[in-house]
Amino acid sequence: MLSTTPCGIKVKTSLDFGPATEAIIDALSVEGFGILTRIDVTETLKTKLDVEIRPYVILGACNPSLAHRGLQIEPDLGLLLPCNVIVYEEAGGAVVAAMEPALMATITGNPGMSEIAEEARTHIVNALESVAAASD
Amino acid sequence: MLSTTPCGIKVKTSLDFGPATEAIIDALSVEGFGILTRIDVTETLKTKLDVEIRPYVILGACNPSLAHRGLQIEPDLGLLLPCNVIVYEEAGGAVVAAMEPALMATITGNPGMSEIAEEARTHIVNALESVAAASD
Repeated sequence: MLSTTPCGIKVKTSLDFGPATEAIIDALSVEGFGILTRIDVTETLKTKLDVEIRPYVILGACNPSLAHRGLQIEPDLGLLLPCNVIVYEEAGGAVVAAMEPALMATITGNPGMSEIAEEARTHIVNALESVAAASD
Repeated sequence: MLSTTPCGIKVKTSLDFGPATEAIIDALSVEGFGILTRIDVTETLKTKLDVEIRPYVILGACNPSLAHRGLQIEPDLGLLLPCNVIVYEEAGGAVVAAMEPALMATITGNPGMSEIAEEARTHIVNALESVAAASD
């Protein structure tokens, strides 16, 4: 089941970190979102600071068509792109969360963004629900 | 001179796109921010949609120490990391803008984030001002 926070939409899965990551990448692909960037936070902090944190990845998900429409309305939209999707390990199963797409409209204050943000949100919610269903 | 928008801090430079991009990468490095990701938006949209847009890049800037502190307070902070910095071409000179770090505190609603966000903001502003000075 999905829960929402001020900055994201979240699902607590019963999957391990690796399978959860693969599941959300596949589910986003079905919704037309490719992964443009992938930051292994665990490895980055180990390399840069020699600290150990749980498995944690930040995926930059992008639907090119929605991004293009958004950038035409709001040139600074790149400040909020791509849509971040995170996966991190927790006791009992990995958490998968996506940035709340509605923020693209509320933060930019551009009324034209609402429709695009809503469309993005539908796809993101579909992807998260698909991962939730797969982990039941 | 810097200007602020609801989602970012911005400087209109007199530099071309390429030199402006190099200048902000160097300035961020001085402030302890490395570039973890680099999305060539122009090339991505050309490849995926066969559309032409102006030169536009999204850089993912990260100060590992600040990121680590933030993640300890707020596990979901990855939804807003790394700090996006965009450069795009405009008549008269490229625009360089960074995501407003204060959003990390306001969006997450986590009071502990304020100090880290403020520290990040100081570094980001320094980097943008350095690019503004170099383009005078």
